Amino acid sequence: MALPETGQSLADRLLAGDRRALARAISLVESDDPRGWELVREVYPHTGHAAIVGLTGAPGAGKSTLIGALTKLRREQGRSVAVLSIDPSSPFTHGALLGDRIRLTDHFLDPGVFIRSMANRGALGGLSEAALQAALLMDAAGREEILLETVGVGQAEVDIIDHADTVVLVLMPGSGDSIQALKAGIMEIPDVIVVNKADHPLTDTMVREIRGVLSLAPQRGGWRVPIVRTEAHLGRGVPELVERLDAHRAFIERQGTLPERRRRNLRSEVLSICAHRLRQRLEERLRDDERFGELLDEVVARRLDPASAAAEVLERFEREGGRSAPVQHAPRQRSADR
Amino acid sequence: MALPETGQSLADRLLAGDRRALARAISLVESDDPRGWELVREVYPHTGHAAIVGLTGAPGAGKSTLIGALTKLRREQGRSVAVLSIDPSSPFTHGALLGDRIRLTDHFLDPGVFIRSMANRGALGGLSEAALQAALLMDAAGREEILLETVGVGQAEVDIIDHADTVVLVLMPGSGDSIQALKAGIMEIPDVIVVNKADHPLTDTMVREIRGVLSLAPQRGGWRVPIVRTEAHLGRGVPELVERLDAHRAFIERQGTLPERRRRNLRSEVLSICAHRLRQRLEERLRDDERFGELLDEVVARRLDPASAAAEVLERFEREGGRSAPVQHAPRQRSADR
Repeated sequence: MALPETGQSLADRLLAGDRRALARAISLVESDDPRGWELVREVYPHTGHAAIVGLTGAPGAGKSTLIGALTKLRREQGRSVAVLSIDPSSPFTHGALLGDRIRLTDHFLDPGVFIRSMANRGALGGLSEAALQAALLMDAAGREEILLETVGVGQAEVDIIDHADTVVLVLMPGSGDSIQALKAGIMEIPDVIVVNKADHPLTDTMVREIRGVLSLAPQRGGWRVPIVRTEAHLGRGVPELVERLDAHRAFIERQGTLPERRRRNLRSEVLSICAHRLRQRLEERLRDDERFGELLDEVVARRLDPASAAAEVLERFEREGGRSAPVQHAPRQRSADR
Repeated sequence: MALPETGQSLADRLLAGDRRALARAISLVESDDPRGWELVREVYPHTGHAAIVGLTGAPGAGKSTLIGALTKLRREQGRSVAVLSIDPSSPFTHGALLGDRIRLTDHFLDPGVFIRSMANRGALGGLSEAALQAALLMDAAGREEILLETVGVGQAEVDIIDHADTVVLVLMPGSGDSIQALKAGIMEIPDVIVVNKADHPLTDTMVREIRGVLSLAPQRGGWRVPIVRTEAHLGRGVPELVERLDAHRAFIERQGTLPERRRRNLRSEVLSICAHRLRQRLEERLRDDERFGELLDEVVARRLDPASAAAEVLERFEREGGRSAPVQHAPRQRSADR
């Protein structure tokens, strides 16, 4: 498909590292604009160079402050950074940088730092899809390190954090939920664990608890998960964290597991895009479908069970061909074409 | 479709409230056996009578102990109870009832109590689907109250808790993660909030925090979310919780929102079953598909972007017809039919 002039030049500007082009490109994928997808297609061959670090953890654990401190260090090392926050409770999302978060505003003036948030709650499938495309755009724009901030609630079928090369779990002392989730196997063992707010009296207890959980977890190819204590608001422990991130990167490159991890991640990304689009087409098709409304009435009246209703819906969907349904359009009139 | 003799009698025995028939029926839906789906279809007209209460909260908050205490009270009221636990960290799941959980074993001997757990991690779509079918079977078997235990991590596209008539969030003092999630809007406002382990010194602080969050949340049709303090292991506060549950039930019945809530839940259940089956068929189709392997190689080599690969996969899937793919079969030979 031929690209419009503007698209072409947007790709060129993006590949040259232009921040405004990057911002515009991300807005296109975020709004599910076909030009956004086309742009990703075009710049995709230029991706794969960034180190993608995912930081996950409950709201309030201090992920954003930690990202601010990490960004500062990376900039001092001369590396360019992009931050993508997909945490609705993040200060990046709210644009309100109050209290000790004010230091983040420094970065907004630094052309070597690009910060973006996405928090379109209720459209998880679509959000995750868009976030991954945004990360690719950041990569294509030449950002050397991409920091993904997500809420560590896990269990979503499509988990953005799975697409990081290195996964960091951020905990704070006294917050038992996350460690319980880790213990119960609900949350996967990350590559690096940070205990932030490490001036808290319960820090040692928490570190011991984490060691206990890790000692029971299966070893993964010889990588020993480090536990790093930080006080992100003071920058304490952050140099050690950077060292650990670099060590993990070196480890996966040495072991040759990076390509394998990326292949697995890309496979799940392709499948997720497929599944999301299939569901999108189905919902689109059913939105004003009178027969679907009638089926639901039958289900509510307990005359037809949900699985049989689903089977009928799927049969019609497939008979009529999923592909012909428009993916996007303005609200239309109720159809009466039965 | 004609039912085999055994299926027929299983349905009859289930509807008569036979515990072994119920256990067998749930095993069928859990293993995705077509006889399970057929059974649900058959008994579905007899469902819709049970009060479905979902209890959600982080691992360690004491949901299982609370469910034990609730069950005891409901039995004293002469009501039959079924417990369905979908929390991998639950003692119900492990069958290990140690320490103060030992009292739950009393219930195992009571024919008026049926306890079942499902925790097939990694198959969330399928798990959630099976759990909802299991709840329908419990309902058909005449259980008056169904207690669903889930981990409150939210954000999964298909959330089992959405299918409860009354949602209870169980918190414990000092555990900040859940309240932060509530505050950030990641977790939906429940119908009833329990602060368990209320002998903890931080209880008052937590109750104040919750009040703060609730005061900012939008009112929902006049229901004021109660905060109940419990010490579940001693049974303290549990009678008050039962009162609140009954009050919420009376409220939704009086307001007429129960049918509306159930219609919304059933709609999302039908869509989830459809989406899950579409994805299942797609993955099945791709499992040994050489062309998909080649597409992935292209993606990994950065020559083809994930969305374009997904578009090609979908096009082939639709051209070849999703319906012809077998849903279940033994591993087959690699096909070389390109």
